[in-house]
This record gives sequence, structure tokens and C-alpha cells, in this order.
Amino acid sequence: MGRVTERRRVIRIRDGAVSTRPDTLVAEEPLEIRLNGKPLAITMRTPGDDFALAAGFLVSEGVLGRADELANIVYCAGATQDGSNTYNVVDVTLAPGVPVPDITLERNVYTTSSCGLCGKASLDAVRTTARWPLADGPGDAGGPAVRIEPGTLSALPDRLRAAQRVFDRTGGLHAAALFTPDGELLDLREDVGRHNAVDKLVGRALQQGLLPLSGSVLMVSGRASFELAQKAVMAGIPVLAAVSAPSSLAVDLAAETGLTLVGFLRGTSMNVYAGEQRLALRTAVGGA
Amino acid sequence: MGRVTERRRVIRIRDGAVSTRPDTLVAEEPLEIRLNGKPLAITMRTPGDDFALAAGFLVSEGVLGRADELANIVYCAGATQDGSNTYNVVDVTLAPGVPVPDITLERNVYTTSSCGLCGKASLDAVRTTARWPLADGPGDAGGPAVRIEPGTLSALPDRLRAAQRVFDRTGGLHAAALFTPDGELLDLREDVGRHNAVDKLVGRALQQGLLPLSGSVLMVSGRASFELAQKAVMAGIPVLAAVSAPSSLAVDLAAETGLTLVGFLRGTSMNVYAGEQRLALRTAVGGA
Repeated sequence: MGRVTERRRVIRIRDGAVSTRPDTLVAEEPLEIRLNGKPLAITMRTPGDDFALAAGFLVSEGVLGRADELANIVYCAGATQDGSNTYNVVDVTLAPGVPVPDITLERNVYTTSSCGLCGKASLDAVRTTARWPLADGPGDAGGPAVRIEPGTLSALPDRLRAAQRVFDRTGGLHAAALFTPDGELLDLREDVGRHNAVDKLVGRALQQGLLPLSGSVLMVSGRASFELAQKAVMAGIPVLAAVSAPSSLAVDLAAETGLTLVGFLRGTSMNVYAGEQRLALRTAVGGA
Repeated sequence: MGRVTERRRVIRIRDGAVSTRPDTLVAEEPLEIRLNGKPLAITMRTPGDDFALAAGFLVSEGVLGRADELANIVYCAGATQDGSNTYNVVDVTLAPGVPVPDITLERNVYTTSSCGLCGKASLDAVRTTARWPLADGPGDAGGPAVRIEPGTLSALPDRLRAAQRVFDRTGGLHAAALFTPDGELLDLREDVGRHNAVDKLVGRALQQGLLPLSGSVLMVSGRASFELAQKAVMAGIPVLAAVSAPSSLAVDLAAETGLTLVGFLRGTSMNVYAGEQRLALRTAVGGA
């Protein structure tokens, strides 16, 4: 984990005064994810938890859902001129019998191969790929129904921030955390890319046999995009809460899949965009 | 531009009071970029300026550098069942004689095909692909040398925010803007993805014959990642200023290419990570 931050010289300007000092920056390095030896994707990430990141990415893409579908993850060594390992290439081997997807730029989970690419197609792709429907049966993904107090949600941003170790030093990291419906912190990951932070959380859960995450709340430090909502749905997480705004397509995906989506979670205020049945609202929901 | 925002129902919770009202969200839709008819990339973006986005993406990837290298950009219509155009697929046709790159997941500008993938390789790829070195000759990219007052930089965040039209309604958009070294706003784009906002700026500049942008300052609303620094370098922009933190690899790229990189630009404070020769610093730079 020594590469999570790096030191660089910085010139500080404060009200016209100039000084030079060392500064701590969040580390960013490319990670290539290979699947059964073939290059699949490259992401710019903060080093650390790389195997979890790769596993979580494959959960988001619908390739993995259980720990026993994953045979092995290793760092791919040796092709540099000096033979050293850069720790920036991981190779994921699927268990025998697990279908190897044909994920390429042409055939991506976000899209169809036709000119009909649209938001609707993106929603359909997630809904048909998801292994654990969020709104089936008495609970979520076969687990107990989640019901959460708004006051519990309001406490999450402070708990997220308190648990962020690297942000305080660099100001440059996104965070994602899993909480219980009672507000207990289960796990937190930080990364220069917010999608990576979520993949790391989900990948660790897969490795520990905890998928689907049907009894948990995913809290993210920034905005809620389609991609983050997709990752929550694919991991069977019933509640996604964000400090900032959601996008239209994130709200549409939540509404279609049964995901509870909360945005602008600040102080005692929040906006609920979908899945309000999981919130314990004492006041009747009326028009305005 | 009618699809830049969309309306959805939201349940607002404020200090325990619950109400339902319509809310304005930033629109997010997939965009597939095709090059000479072949799928090249998919990005989740806010609709609008799609041709500029595609052109700017190709500048960032080193494919385009001049307006006359671009023959045509069209929306690809017709493959939906009802024959309608989703306006989510654009096809870019290069001018005759312009080399069509072999950009795939296996061969990406960020990476080499070996296991030696590392930050150094990412830096090398940008440096060898860039058409307009930033630090050559008397000025930048053959243009006049840029010199900027710290006080001018300090004024940019407020001007960026004042020019953001959609953010005020949605809270969900990243912004990127081009300024002159005197702080005059040249252009501003907003998008759900900050890399898209920069691509839209750069693509419009290409279409208008303004590349390289050697006399301009790029200001972004969030953090400065490697990808944003790359886009600045590839467009010949000599100064990148960000409201928040840069990553280690963004700083390394700036130092290697001669890009001036300013972070934590807030009030009268800022941190200069590279390229300080373009800042008019009256106080001698001393150690601390």
C-alpha cells in the first residue's frame, strides 16, 4: 500500500507569498485487466487492492457473481526490458466452465452493436445481465427486506469522511463505503476514480463470498452516475446514496431495477429519486 | 440542446418534512464514436456538442490535429426497429490520406502491449504522440510565450462558475473552460463527465481551426487527473488549472511535457506543481 500516495515538490502561493515544499499526492497508475490472458480493459487507478478491483470490475460487467467462479488472479510479470514486475497488469483466470464473455469495444455491456444505441438499451443491458433482481420476493435478492431511517442516512457522510485516511493528506481521492441499514461501516475504499473505489468494495465482497450485498447501503462521496448505479445493481446492493446529484440515466436505472437512489445527502436533507419504499418515512408523501 | 437536462419526480426530505416535486437532472446518455464506420469508443455523456466531443476525443488520441484532416461527422441513423435516429452514435470520416489508427483495447494510447504497462509508458505515449511540444522555442507550440499573473488565475473559478448555466439547475455537471492569459473567457462546456467537457472544448477549437491552443488556459471544475493533463498537452494548451487536487501521474506528465499545472485554486491560494516559469511570481521561490 506504499504507493497509495506519492511525494512531489509544490510551489505554494498564499496571498502573494511564495514558498516551496514537499506535497503528498494521490498516486495514479494505469491498471490493465486481462481475462484468461487476453487484455480486457485499462483503468487509471490508485494502486492497492488491485485483485479486488479486477474482480469487482468483472462483477459489474456480469462475468463474475460467486467466489468459486474465480480461479485465480495474479500480477503479470516479466515483459519489461529489465524483467521487473510493474504491478500494473493483472490476469484473471475464470474457473473451468465459467463462460468467457466477448467483451470488446464493439460488444460492450453498455451498448448494442446496432445504431440504436440509447439510454433505454443501456438500462435493458443491466436489467437482463443482473443476477440478483433487487425487488423480487419479500426482500432484496432473496435476503431480508432493507428498511432504513432517513436519520441513519444523514449520519453516513460524516462517517464516510471520518474513515477516509488518504483524503485528508491529498484531497484527491474519491471514496465509496458499504454500510449496514443501521449505519454501521462495513468497508471503505478510496481511489482516484470513483468507479474503481466501488469495484474494489464489490470485488472484496465477492472474494469473501458476500455477494449479493443485499443487506447493505452503498455511499459514494460524489455524484451518482449511470455507471455507479449499474455497479450497485450488479452487486445486488439495494440502496445507493450520494453526496451530490444523480444523472437522469442513473435515476432511470434505479426506477427500472428497484434500486433506492438518494442524492444531495447533506445534513438532515436528502432527495430520494427512486425506491422510497425502503425509507422509513413517517410523513405521508404529498405533492408540492 | 433540449436534452441537456431532464425532469424527474423527486421526494425531498428536509428536517423530517417530506414533499414530492419535479426536479431537474443533468441528462446522461451513451455516445458511440465510430471512425470511418468502425466502432471506436463509447462514453457516457450529456447530449449536445456531440460532433465537437467526437472531434476532441480524436485530438486527445492523436488522430486529429487540423480541421482539414476531418472530412465529415454525422449522426448514424436507422438501425433502431422503428428506423428513428437516437442521436447517440456519431461516425467520423477522416480526410483522404489521414492515417486511421489501430486503436483497440489491446493497442491504446495509454499503454503498451507488453506486461510493462506503467506510468512511465503512459507518459512516453503522450510525449511521443503530441504534435505541439509545449516548451519548445521562444513560446509554446510556436506561439507567443504565455505569462500569467497569479491574481488572474485566482479570478478564474468565479468566472467559470458564473458562466455555468446548467450547474445551477442540476448541481450535476462538470465544467471546463478556456481563458486567455488575461482571464478573458473564450469558451465553456459542461458535461456529466469532466473528460467530455474538455473534449467538447478541444473539438470546437479544432473545427474552428484554432489548434494548437497555445495562448490559452484550461480551467476545470474538479480534480486534475492524468487524462485531463493528457488532453491539455495533446491540444497544445500550456496551462491547466484545477479547483481541486492533481494526481501524481498528472504532475509527472506536466513536468515531462512542460505543462504548467496549478491545483487547489481557491481564493488567493494555489499550488503550482509544474511549469512555474509561466507564472509571474514576484517573490523569489524559496525553500520551506
